[in-house]
Amino acid sequence: MWDIAVQTGRAMALITLTSDFGWVDAYVGVMKGVILSIAPSARLVDLSHDVPPQNIEAAAYLLSSAAAYFPRATVHLAVVDPGVGSARRPLLVTTAHASFIGPDNGLFSFALDEPDAQAWVLDRPAWWLPHPGNTFHGRDIFAPVAAHRANGTPPSELGSPIGDAVRLAPRAPEQTPDGAILGHIVHLDHFGNLISNIPAEWLGGGCWQCEIAGQRIEGPRATYADVQPGQPVLLVSSSGTAEIAVREGHAARQLGIRVGAQVRLSMC
Amino acid sequence: MWDIAVQTGRAMALITLTSDFGWVDAYVGVMKGVILSIAPSARLVDLSHDVPPQNIEAAAYLLSSAAAYFPRATVHLAVVDPGVGSARRPLLVTTAHASFIGPDNGLFSFALDEPDAQAWVLDRPAWWLPHPGNTFHGRDIFAPVAAHRANGTPPSELGSPIGDAVRLAPRAPEQTPDGAILGHIVHLDHFGNLISNIPAEWLGGGCWQCEIAGQRIEGPRATYADVQPGQPVLLVSSSGTAEIAVREGHAARQLGIRVGAQVRLSMC
Amino acid sequence: MWDIAVQTGRAMALITLTSDFGWVDAYVGVMKGVILSIAPSARLVDLSHDVPPQNIEAAAYLLSSAAAYFPRATVHLAVVDPGVGSARRPLLVTTAHASFIGPDNGLFSFALDEPDAQAWVLDRPAWWLPHPGNTFHGRDIFAPVAAHRANGTPPSELGSPIGDAVRLAPRAPEQTPDGAILGHIVHLDHFGNLISNIPAEWLGGGCWQCEIAGQRIEGPRATYADVQPGQPVLLVSSSGTAEIAVREGHAARQLGIRVGAQVRLSMC
Repeated sequence: MWDIAVQTGRAMALITLTSDFGWVDAYVGVMKGVILSIAPSARLVDLSHDVPPQNIEAAAYLLSSAAAYFPRATVHLAVVDPGVGSARRPLLVTTAHASFIGPDNGLFSFALDEPDAQAWVLDRPAWWLPHPGNTFHGRDIFAPVAAHRANGTPPSELGSPIGDAVRLAPRAPEQTPDGAILGHIVHLDHFGNLISNIPAEWLGGGCWQCEIAGQRIEGPRATYADVQPGQPVLLVSSSGTAEIAVREGHAARQLGIRVGAQVRLSMC
Repeated sequence: MWDIAVQTGRAMALITLTSDFGWVDAYVGVMKGVILSIAPSARLVDLSHDVPPQNIEAAAYLLSSAAAYFPRATVHLAVVDPGVGSARRPLLVTTAHASFIGPDNGLFSFALDEPDAQAWVLDRPAWWLPHPGNTFHGRDIFAPVAAHRANGTPPSELGSPIGDAVRLAPRAPEQTPDGAILGHIVHLDHFGNLISNIPAEWLGGGCWQCEIAGQRIEGPRATYADVQPGQPVLLVSSSGTAEIAVREGHAARQLGIRVGAQVRLSMC
Repeated sequence: MWDIAVQTGRAMALITLTSDFGWVDAYVGVMKGVILSIAPSARLVDLSHDVPPQNIEAAAYLLSSAAAYFPRATVHLAVVDPGVGSARRPLLVTTAHASFIGPDNGLFSFALDEPDAQAWVLDRPAWWLPHPGNTFHGRDIFAPVAAHRANGTPPSELGSPIGDAVRLAPRAPEQTPDGAILGHIVHLDHFGNLISNIPAEWLGGGCWQCEIAGQRIEGPRATYADVQPGQPVLLVSSSGTAEIAVREGHAARQLGIRVGAQVRLSMC
């Protein structure tokens, strides 16, 4: 998946931040203050801090759809952490392309599937803030470790290799014996577009009928503008999967569909 | 309009981002990842990503009110793009002061009015991400072109000059024969303040009576604190136009006024 | 309070921004454009721009909880400014650790309490944007002064020392003769957690019964996971004060508690 990104320019310390912290508090700002105290020239990019509270699956989807567009050696810091302060482990996942730092609760399942992935438990408090508390490991553990990783500290100094990092149970799409495809909605975006987990490649170049929540939509069309305003449309999302949208409308509200809804595609 | 900004310090690659993408998804972060893959040291500043979905006029207003405060050679990337994937052209507008990159749908009308403005259609896919899709040109076309422009690539390599870039129909304020001024509300800000398109210079130093939605407010006052808390006030906005506000209140809700409402000013 | 932050790396110009401007307008972006016009290499970090409109206390709380996590010499720009354009003074507060720039309305009370604090009235328009207006001193006065301060301009050139900067009336917690502690809720965070002003040190290592809004909660517990999902819990917040939360829930909504509510702790 990493090939699609343009890879030019020199390597720079780049850290992305993803959380369910929202923007009302200074939690995100505090993590950045800690990072810049340790890695003063690191570039910081917010992916989203509006992940629904404690929704690990939603954060994992965001990260997995975004990580490929960042330069090699980017450090991805993600904190959606209902188990903070409990026995859940602090985690680093390294791949050939990037580093991922956050709680060991499944956030980084997609990265663990990369061929060169290695998981590390963060068990070296020397790299953390002194006296870490039990409620904000984003500030006390993950931000400082991300900064040190961005500074070039090797994984083997930050933690110890493990083989049993937590993975989310995959809800994979499937092809039925009669040639249909079953999948589900994995993401509802800001525009109300419904993103499924059905890869565009499975559609070949053919015509498909999409059944979702009792409605039928034929496609895929090339773009939103191929239907009239207000009409539903089946197309290929910017993540390369089947998407149901309403042109200049909000598909989720208009069609009454939520994340998790089943999608069935059959050939026209 | 460019003279008001302080212009010191050396030129740096600076890119602003404006869109209707919101913050729930990673769309903005992904554009930044693409930019920093190509222009690793570019500075990035968000103007707003909360433009009402597909509201080109609102985005154009934000950009036009903000651009003058950025250093010379800033690149403004703006993506409010209901026509993505259709025949609408990808556009670069250059002025003596800045570059503007986004869809050719009127977003940059105000920049096209600058004396040295030149529009360019972006017709050189070599500068884009490989295999651009039909749904996210912000990522696939505009972000990479903005990064290359920030790196110093000349417009003539990024595209071809055109003379027919799309402009929004202007809704200009007018002065009536009897000395009154007719305008309308072009922006409702976070505080509920109502910003009109009537230039402060038209008010001279006189006393005016403002009629809006059946209400009358005398002014302009020097500042919010010149009326009691909860009272409406007519003053000069930070954009240099007539503004209707309520001190320590929300004028739009309290007075029942929306964007587009007519404003009439007559001399006291 | 400054000792808790990790202090490594070289000094860099770093400016944080806090306001009640929200993200719908380009006000925050415009302040950043002004800053980067003057201090092109300054690092910018947003603390929050979702402070409730004109709520000086809320902004002061955010700043006071975040500032310690930023490197020495950070410049904190904060604009919650109901008195903009009136006689309220523009202010710089310097401490051994940081600089604070914004309106003289109590925002920086906590910084004024630092041992080496000095307040300065900003009375040198040469450092401001030309022709400052009466409605947006964040852009016209505070952003340029913050940029010049980040560039190393000494306080004595930016303003004149004063001894009567405005302070918020402190609402301190108290210990009663019978060993109980009285405090109140000073912050409601994004998760619905209720943060009090009672320092964790006052709790010693003992068991306390918390009474709030007619409810009783025993603690403090070590972390959220020490109670069942949906149950209220008393613990030590990431700011080092007593906090009332609901595990995987929203304490403020579930318990019907707002900012300002009284908290009483008595020993079990």
